[in-house]
Amino acid sequence: MRVDGDRLLQRLRDLAEIGAIPGGGCARLALSDEDRAGRDLVVMWMRDAGLEVTVDAIGNVVATRKGQVPGPAVMCGSHIDTVATGGAYDGNLGVLAGLEVMETLNDAGLTTRRPLAVGFFTDEEGARFAPDMLGSLVYAGGMGVETAHDIISIDGARLGDELARIGYLGPAPCPGLVPHAYVELHIEQGPVLDRAGEVIGAVTGIQGISWQELTFEGQANHAGTTPMAYRHDAGYAAAATAAFVRRLVSDIGPPQVGTVGRLDLHPDLVNVVAARATMTVDLRNTDEQVLQAAEKRLAQHVEEVARSEGVSVSTRRLARFEPVEFDPRVIALVEATAAGFGYQARRLPAGAGHDAQMLARVCPAGMVFVPSVGGVSHNPAEHTDPEHLVAGANVLLHTLVRLAEEDRIPQAPLPPEGGLR
Amino acid sequence: MRVDGDRLLQRLRDLAEIGAIPGGGCARLALSDEDRAGRDLVVMWMRDAGLEVTVDAIGNVVATRKGQVPGPAVMCGSHIDTVATGGAYDGNLGVLAGLEVMETLNDAGLTTRRPLAVGFFTDEEGARFAPDMLGSLVYAGGMGVETAHDIISIDGARLGDELARIGYLGPAPCPGLVPHAYVELHIEQGPVLDRAGEVIGAVTGIQGISWQELTFEGQANHAGTTPMAYRHDAGYAAAATAAFVRRLVSDIGPPQVGTVGRLDLHPDLVNVVAARATMTVDLRNTDEQVLQAAEKRLAQHVEEVARSEGVSVSTRRLARFEPVEFDPRVIALVEATAAGFGYQARRLPAGAGHDAQMLARVCPAGMVFVPSVGGVSHNPAEHTDPEHLVAGANVLLHTLVRLAEEDRIPQAPLPPEGGLR
Repeated sequence: MRVDGDRLLQRLRDLAEIGAIPGGGCARLALSDEDRAGRDLVVMWMRDAGLEVTVDAIGNVVATRKGQVPGPAVMCGSHIDTVATGGAYDGNLGVLAGLEVMETLNDAGLTTRRPLAVGFFTDEEGARFAPDMLGSLVYAGGMGVETAHDIISIDGARLGDELARIGYLGPAPCPGLVPHAYVELHIEQGPVLDRAGEVIGAVTGIQGISWQELTFEGQANHAGTTPMAYRHDAGYAAAATAAFVRRLVSDIGPPQVGTVGRLDLHPDLVNVVAARATMTVDLRNTDEQVLQAAEKRLAQHVEEVARSEGVSVSTRRLARFEPVEFDPRVIALVEATAAGFGYQARRLPAGAGHDAQMLARVCPAGMVFVPSVGGVSHNPAEHTDPEHLVAGANVLLHTLVRLAEEDRIPQAPLPPEGGLR
Repeated sequence: MRVDGDRLLQRLRDLAEIGAIPGGGCARLALSDEDRAGRDLVVMWMRDAGLEVTVDAIGNVVATRKGQVPGPAVMCGSHIDTVATGGAYDGNLGVLAGLEVMETLNDAGLTTRRPLAVGFFTDEEGARFAPDMLGSLVYAGGMGVETAHDIISIDGARLGDELARIGYLGPAPCPGLVPHAYVELHIEQGPVLDRAGEVIGAVTGIQGISWQELTFEGQANHAGTTPMAYRHDAGYAAAATAAFVRRLVSDIGPPQVGTVGRLDLHPDLVNVVAARATMTVDLRNTDEQVLQAAEKRLAQHVEEVARSEGVSVSTRRLARFEPVEFDPRVIALVEATAAGFGYQARRLPAGAGHDAQMLARVCPAGMVFVPSVGGVSHNPAEHTDPEHLVAGANVLLHTLVRLAEEDRIPQAPLPPEGGLR
């Protein structure tokens, strides 16, 4: 049994036309008019496929295909909102591949033992309403609906009002129904599979994330008339810290990553010693203990450089998520299913956040990755080879079917042929 | 003989009222309406003092007091334009103290042997028309009048048109008359005299200035999904270079200074590896050879970090001035004159540019510094103790008189009492 690749690819193209931007990308910010149009299209496809569609109080849409027995569904899904310069596949692939799984089963006239469900979660990107992964967070019970409704967007709109405005303030309660298991197909958004020439990633978990904003306050001084010994250079403290982050990450070694993506000086003039520097530090690791140790070493360095430069420093935590480990049985099942198609799946952690990490709080969860050419994402140039998109959908199909058929989630890796029946 | 300190201080206050901004500062951008009003006031005072006022083709104003014999004047001066957040003394002090010298001689009924002149030069700050020190540059023959007239301001106006508009497109030719000698009184704009508790600086020269803009171009990548080994982080290259500038300056030691005052990342987001980083490097030294060596070491570092990070780099020269050494006889005369008032003058280089460096191209030149409290300048909080302002004017008075009386510029330091007669 295989998905209809042409149908999947056509639907990806059709959805990408809504909010299309130059270069082949999409802008469908959460709960915008474009998001509504995208939602309406996908919901129409879901209904056309005979699925039972529910909308919950945070706007998550779940479409269920009945099983032979009642009970918790085997769920898949992702999101269809995008960043302002989004690509055609980020999120959309997981949703439309899930829908394609249902269509494929419809075409085959098969009913799985357990129900199957495909969902799309509200505001995964967090580009309009913070935090990101909001819909799945609320679905999993990590935030109350009222709190979420009161979130104000970057354009000043209240989330609850925007949900009502676009017609997606639904009646289904949150937290949502706990699935039997959850599997999300997603583009990698990184370069690992593409560089290695591999087609399928069996995602082991999500890196823990530490985001901090550091603000150094020194003294604006004339770059010519102020001897070095009299300076309190906030810009130097920031640059030295950015250089330290690289050394720290090198010392720890993979999978530790660290990034100073934002660094702003004030007054930012060629001949004025910076009075203020604001920078961010993004540290990620799959190991919480290592991540905490990295944060400690960074804090020590910041103290030292601030003291020696005679500047003050304040630290603001922008985000902190502990690493998430996916269910070993789901990881093994993805691997075995891929092997059934002749793909040697690569185990790798996800470097970005995904709805699956919220679902992992309530049920066995996992993810399937397909390659991102050049690792490019959040960019109109985001691309995945069509055959890899279809391969990912086929792995999703057979992983979901296996989960829906077995009494229990398989305890051990299956032999290669076990993934297909 | 002493200047009338009250008259000088009152005139500084009166001039500061034109273009006054909150906090006690001034905004008289070159050739603006405020600059015209300031010019008109000072020209009125010059005429009231019986001086012969000329305006040249670049708007420089020179007021001459006849001597006993004709010939080149002993000249002093500075500028009365300011930056947008200027103080009350930067430039203004040198002009109004020069005027006060003339008034003092008028009051005493004395005529010096050589003529004396006080000038103010157009657009010293360069805040509206680049480059800075423009009027004195043209006066000294370093730029043609037509070229200067065609310079376009930050607000889109042509310099020649603005000169005509405010009535300061004068008939006197450029280059201007070569003075016998030139002495400029100025606030230090740095912290050295203030910290040392000294009143008078005998300025030895002007630091050479090297301004470069470096642009690193790497690749925008996701901060979570991109392993460190695959990154081309323009922001890291910039931060590493900023940290290197500090090491370089420390290695060389005083008077070398170095500043990274501007550093801009793109897209400047917490979770995106910077695709582009633009930064400036300001290097200054009194020794041209050392400055060149510093530039070479910086270029080597930039090459290395760009290569190891896999980013491209381009370098744009924003400014380059060789160090200027003032005339040793003028330096010694300032020192001796200060000693005559009981001040142990400190020899120090100027860290910022001044009109005196342009005049130094054509005649023996020097400068007198008075302290800037806290080294603050280009800021409404710029401040110099009134008694220091007056002390500087007295040193200027006796330095000018001595230069105007002697047949030749004195060849050697004078004994302390020699500065006064």
